[in-house]
Order: sequence, then C-alpha cells, then structure tokens
Amino acid sequence: MNPRTTIKLSHFLNSGNKLFKSRFIGENAGFNLMPSAGISTARQSYGADGKTSGRIFADYQIFKGKAALSAAPVLPTFSKLDSGYTKVERRGSIMLTFRPAIGERKYDSEKKQLFALSVTEIGSFISLGPGDSCEFFHDPSMLSRDAGQVRKNLSVKPHADGYFISLSVTNNILKTNERFTVPVTTAEFAVMRAAFSFALPHIMGWAHSTNPPSDSVGRDSLKVHPQLAAASEWDR
Amino acid sequence: MNPRTTIKLSHFLNSGNKLFKSRFIGENAGFNLMPSAGISTARQSYGADGKTSGRIFADYQIFKGKAALSAAPVLPTFSKLDSGYTKVERRGSIMLTFRPAIGERKYDSEKKQLFALSVTEIGSFISLGPGDSCEFFHDPSMLSRDAGQVRKNLSVKPHADGYFISLSVTNNILKTNERFTVPVTTAEFAVMRAAFSFALPHIMGWAHSTNPPSDSVGRDSLKVHPQLAAASEWDR
Amino acid sequence: MNPRTTIKLSHFLNSGNKLFKSRFIGENAGFNLMPSAGISTARQSYGADGKTSGRIFADYQIFKGKAALSAAPVLPTFSKLDSGYTKVERRGSIMLTFRPAIGERKYDSEKKQLFALSVTEIGSFISLGPGDSCEFFHDPSMLSRDAGQVRKNLSVKPHADGYFISLSVTNNILKTNERFTVPVTTAEFAVMRAAFSFALPHIMGWAHSTNPPSDSVGRDSLKVHPQLAAASEWDR
Amino acid sequence: MNPRTTIKLSHFLNSGNKLFKSRFIGENAGFNLMPSAGISTARQSYGADGKTSGRIFADYQIFKGKAALSAAPVLPTFSKLDSGYTKVERRGSIMLTFRPAIGERKYDSEKKQLFALSVTEIGSFISLGPGDSCEFFHDPSMLSRDAGQVRKNLSVKPHADGYFISLSVTNNILKTNERFTVPVTTAEFAVMRAAFSFALPHIMGWAHSTNPPSDSVGRDSLKVHPQLAAASEWDR
Repeated sequence: MNPRTTIKLSHFLNSGNKLFKSRFIGENAGFNLMPSAGISTARQSYGADGKTSGRIFADYQIFKGKAALSAAPVLPTFSKLDSGYTKVERRGSIMLTFRPAIGERKYDSEKKQLFALSVTEIGSFISLGPGDSCEFFHDPSMLSRDAGQVRKNLSVKPHADGYFISLSVTNNILKTNERFTVPVTTAEFAVMRAAFSFALPHIMGWAHSTNPPSDSVGRDSLKVHPQLAAASEWDR
Repeated sequence: MNPRTTIKLSHFLNSGNKLFKSRFIGENAGFNLMPSAGISTARQSYGADGKTSGRIFADYQIFKGKAALSAAPVLPTFSKLDSGYTKVERRGSIMLTFRPAIGERKYDSEKKQLFALSVTEIGSFISLGPGDSCEFFHDPSMLSRDAGQVRKNLSVKPHADGYFISLSVTNNILKTNERFTVPVTTAEFAVMRAAFSFALPHIMGWAHSTNPPSDSVGRDSLKVHPQLAAASEWDR
Repeated sequence: MNPRTTIKLSHFLNSGNKLFKSRFIGENAGFNLMPSAGISTARQSYGADGKTSGRIFADYQIFKGKAALSAAPVLPTFSKLDSGYTKVERRGSIMLTFRPAIGERKYDSEKKQLFALSVTEIGSFISLGPGDSCEFFHDPSMLSRDAGQVRKNLSVKPHADGYFISLSVTNNILKTNERFTVPVTTAEFAVMRAAFSFALPHIMGWAHSTNPPSDSVGRDSLKVHPQLAAASEWDR
Repeated sequence: MNPRTTIKLSHFLNSGNKLFKSRFIGENAGFNLMPSAGISTARQSYGADGKTSGRIFADYQIFKGKAALSAAPVLPTFSKLDSGYTKVERRGSIMLTFRPAIGERKYDSEKKQLFALSVTEIGSFISLGPGDSCEFFHDPSMLSRDAGQVRKNLSVKPHADGYFISLSVTNNILKTNERFTVPVTTAEFAVMRAAFSFALPHIMGWAHSTNPPSDSVGRDSLKVHPQLAAASEWDR
C-alpha cells in the first residue's frame, strides 16, 4: 500500500466531511454539486397507513480529479402472494453513480451516469484478488425495441495501489460516448469490498428471510411459539 | 477470472430479472418453469394467535444450459422448554434445489431434487480454496427400513472459472439414477460463499442466541435492566 | 480437505440431528448424555416486569470418539450507570464444553470441563492459518487464595485435516489431571471460525453499541430524530 | 504466533476483567485510571419524547506497559430532510484513545489523545496484510485559522507478532510533542480487524439503509406491503 496516497486521501476526507455535507444541503463551501444532485438509492417507503416513509441516504463517495464515484445499496422489493407468503419481486443491487469533474472539487450531477451491479456482479467484484480485473456490459434497453442502442461497460482494472473503475456509455441514438475513470485506492477498495459484502445478503433478500420478525425473538415469540419451519430434504 | 463468462452471465441476469420473475407469477415470457415450481425454503410461520404467517422466498438462482440450481437458507426451529428456555429443535440448512432443463431456459420442477447442506457441510463449502473439491453423501431414509435404498451424492469440483456442482440421486427402489451438473462461475461461487457465510449463524441458531430481543436494547431494556447473563467458567 | 472424513461426518450429523436432540429432552435413542447435561451458555433473561425470560440454547456440537466439544456464545452483561448510560459490565466469551465419551456415542456431562475463550483468545482462534497453533492458560482461582491450584490449558494444534483441540485440567487440590482431545475437521473448524467471528462483536458489546434500538430506525425514530451522536476528535 | 505472548495476555485479560471494571466504577483494585477517565464513544441518544437516552460503552481495550489503547465505534448522525428522507449528516468513525502509563497498570486519562479513523482509514487498517504498514495524518484544526498548528500522525507497523500502533501529536502552539506506542499482538489485531469490519457498515450508515425498520419485516409490514423501492439504472 502506498501511504502517501492514503495520507492525502485521509486529509481530504477529514476536512471533506463538512464540505461534502454542505453540498447536499445547498450550502456553498467553496465548491458544489450541480443542483440536480439528488442521489437516490437505498430507499425504504412504507405507505398508505400513516406510517413513516423513510429513505436513508448513505452513499460511499470517492471524489477524484476527473470524476466522482458513489456507491449505495438498493434493496430488493417484495410482494405478498395470495398464499400469504412474501417473495422477492425485484432483486436489489449496488448502484454506482459517476459524475464528471467540472472544476476543482466540482462534479456535474447533470451528467451523471448509473450502473447497477447485480448480485452476481457484486460476487465478481468482492472476489477480485490483487491484479485481477473484471468487466461487465449492460444494455438498459435490452428487451425493448431500442435494444443495442445504448451500451454500458464497467471495468475494474488493477493499478499500483488499487483499481481503476471505469464506466463508458455509448449511446447510438444520441451519438454520444462518455467515459469516466476513477482511481480507487486499496483502502477505498477495501471499504467497497466490506460494504458490498455486508450489503449482499440484504440485496439478495436473505437478510430478510433469515431474520425473523423482531417479534419472533422478542416477547411475543416466546408466547406464540414461532414455528420457523425447516423444510426437509425428502425422498423422491 | 474469465471476463467473457461474466459478461455473458451479466447480460443474462440483467435481462433475466424480469423474465425469471414472470415464471413464478404465471406469466409467460418466452419460457416457464413447470406448474409445480413451488420453491419452498426459508419459511417463517407464526401462528395460532392471529399474527402474521409469513414466508419469504429469496432463493439465489443459477440458470445454466442443462440444469438450474437454487439455494436458500432454511432456519432452525425452536421449541420452548418447561424451564422457560428456548432451544434449537432442528438445526437449519442451506437447501439446494436442482431442476433439469427441458428446453431453452425451461426447467422442470416436477423432476427437481433437493439436497440440504448441514452446518458442517456449509463449513466445508465456504472454506473451499481454489482447486479444492468436496463431496457429501446423504441417505434420506437413513434411520428407516429403507436405509441405503436412496443415495444422494453432492460434489463440488473445480474448473477453469469456478466449480461444477453436481448432484446424483440413486434410487434402488425406483431403479432410477439421476444426475445434475451446474457449472458455477467464480463470481457466482463468491455470492454463494458470502451468502452461506452470512446465513450460517442464523442456521445454527447463534444469530438468535446472540441478538437480544429488540426490546432489550430499545426502550424497555433500559428500564428493565436486561440481565444478559454471562456464564462463568467455574472451577471443579 | 479429506472428503472421506467429511462424508462420514456428514452421515453422522445427518442422522444425528434427531438422535442428539433426543438426548436433551430425555428420550433414549440408543445413547444419551448424563442426566446433569444442563448445557448453559447463551442466556437472555429479562425480568421483574412480567416480560419474557428467555434463554436460547444453540450450541455447536462436535461428537468424536473420545470426547465431545460444544461451543456457544456467552453475551456480555450490561449495567446502567446513574448518568443514564449503559456500559458493559462483564464481557462475553465463547464457552467451550468438553465431555468425555463413556461408551459409543455416550458422553458424561458429570465430568464436563469448561473453558471460556476471551475476546482476544477468540481473535487468536479465528486468525489461525493452516499449520498454525495456539495455546491458552487459565487459572479459574487466579485472584483468590487458591491461585495456582487449578490450571487449565487449551491448545489448538494442526493435523492433516483440521486441528486437535485439547483441554487439560490440573487440579492440585483434588490431585486430578484430566485431558480431553477432540479432532476437529477443516469443515468443522470453518464453522467455528465463521460462528466465532459472527459472535465476536456481540461478545464485545459492539453489536449492541452499533445497533440502534429498533425504534430509532423504525417509526419512532423518524418522528423523534434519533440523535446518534458522533464524538469528535478534538484538539488538546 | 507467539504462544507465550498470548499466554501472558490471556492471564492478564482473564484476571483483568474484574480489575479493569473496577477502575471505571471508582473502586481501587491495586491500580486505577485517572478520575477523568470518561471514555466516550458509541453514543445513542433519543430525546425530547420521554424515550430512553442510552449510550453504550463497549470499548475494546489493550493495556500494555507504556500505554493503553482503546477502540470504539462512533455511529454516524442522521438528519431528516424536508422531503421526508433521512440522510447521513456526519459519518461515523472508529475512535482510538491512547493513555500513557503512569505506573504499573495505571493509565493517565488526563493525558489521553484521540484519533478518529475515517471510513477509508478503516479500510486501510482492515486490509493490512502481514508485514504491511500504513500511516495517517490528521490536522484537527484543518479548516480553521489554526490549521497546521496541531499534527496527529497514526502509524501501524508490523513486528514479529502483530503490529506497533503509534500516535504522535505535535502541537506547535503548546510546543508539545507526545508519542504513544502500543504493541498489538496478532490476536489483538485480529479482534480489531473483525470488530472494525463489523462496525464499518454501521459507521457508513449502510447498516441503517439496508435494514428496514423492524416493522417492515414484522407484523405491520405484512399488512402494509412495504414498498422497499428499487432504483433503476435508467438510460440517458
């Protein structure tokens, strides 16, 4: 690991906490994100019942010279079946957001590009060894008549102290081709690896299926005899 | 890691989210599972008290050319002793379900076979290093008069980018011998390893025994003085 | 890893689920533990308020030819200060219990010996690499006038497929010297490592200090503005 | 790993549980901390509503000959936006506290120095391999007119069995220069690594954004249809 890189980063992050915050609440602390910087990701909505509707923003943000990269978990959605069971309707992801730099510590949210890492892509990401690389291709319009018109390519490639994470977006309709590259240090990558690993079972829905309702371990469960049923491997 | 494999997979999964979902809610999006595809695993039932009875389906599914493999945690069951204590009655497992392909992206749930990884088999699975292999044998009728009539053999063997996970089921009564092999990429195996590792303490019941009821850390606990008792290592 | 070992184990555990269970509820399924087999460890007691008093038994048990080893987390105890704060009063541990075999699959709980792994000893345990060993000495009467009279020595030593975990207890007062050795497979050790790693933050009290009361993220928190205070690193 | 070191440590910790505790509740068990030893870190305050205001103290403490090091997670703070969403206002950290020894097993809290590891510095810390080192610089007054007057330097350097963790604080205003060095064994470092890794997603706020309110998986959620929204990676 290159301590010098870490040192600089550490300085930046240390002071940055306050600065970065201000950008999201509209204050100007020497630089800012574009007005439309509404970073959306990990959302939790409850509804129709007077209960809370809360989304929690907790992106991991990496600000570098030419672009900024932020990552945040996107939870799966569930739906309740007529049978009374709940199933994962749409699996979650880790949403990566890239913003180009438009000045010193200024990033343009108007030009942000998104890439949603699927469960298996996260598996690829967290199992990268030193020197390994990986690459993913997405076609956001894959099943529509615009299939093939937009191509997104995310690559993770090793460098001396960490990885380059690059996103290129080719849009044949708009005739555009954008490319973002964010150098990520070993330390930053370790944070991503740990955070993505933590998030993975939540994104898959396993955190929901393994954690019984709080009731079941708490007071009620001990009255109610929670029947956490174990399926058996039967003979056929 | 072979990026080409990952690329293809990524495409497939990306588009597949919508397609796969449809198969479980009865829509036909070009292919389907057999009608009886009721995948059952991580279940949570509460009962007898008007409370919710909820099962959450959150399988990790790997669809390949000849067969599909899905994995899901099965929670332990608990029972309350007369002493007021709760004990694990039946430990949980990771239920692996294999379905043979019966056409392009069609899998036959009528012919599915199950293999429930025990806690120690999960330990073996998650500690596999590159190039390692492991193999487990189950006799579902072990303690009955049919002992030895049905033999299930699960093997995990390395290939260039990941592992082959194979299940063979020999049924001497029905004179049948079925075999499923699913090639699992390094990325998919990383997902399984992370998800199985996450699930392990839940399957063992440790997640239940270490997490106090939500009350105990919340409002009530601080009034009630939760006595999370520490056993002592006494002298004999 | 030696698949043959795993195979046999897998058989044993597979069938054992039912057998082992019976031993704890008094049924005789061909073998049993001694009557006093009250395995105590992960306890959760609430009290004095009509609320539930629940202890959850969820030992990880390894039954071998000469002895059985079981492991279970012991939670820390907390006490509330006059200031309104809560502190860890006694840190938790992983309680290891050894029972000698007294026949085929019979283990004598009358002669059980305990060894409570401290937080740092757990750190030593989970960081063991292949071929590494470690050894811990405890004196249960250390601060009393009997200091030095009883010596417990736990050692973890590598073998071809896993580790030997041995406990020797020398009691100068009773003039006894007992020794238990349990061969633990790589798979079993992987379970212990994963389970101990999971339990560690709970044993340290960090799981309690990092997890806000369920209320704080749920309905109330969003009304109440939970002030999860961040301490600052101030200048002196 | 050096078992002798571990042995001594184990003895010390074993007996220490009781001794160390006494120091924080004002008893004198042969040594004590200075009166102002109010170690503050992982705090949870709720307020304004008659609900509990609870801080949980759960430091991991390492007592060595010349200094003591304790580590504890500091949670992020959240604030609620007018939009109804909640965002991380200030990210958390791992607070390291150093206290110089002023006699046998006596540590001076009056002279303690703090160093708050940021998220990325934690990433650096937990990804240290054997033989690796890292170093971080903080300027607590960075954005004020005193910028550059106080410099804190934390270094982690390998030794035969573990790491030396050193903090030096240079204060140009007070013309002081303090230095603490705590030798940390491999086992102690493993505890720190595991505990810091556990704490990381909580410190980042991801544990809050991925864990739905307990209600959402419990009884209410199953009535209310929790809409855990999944953001989509749209095409621009």
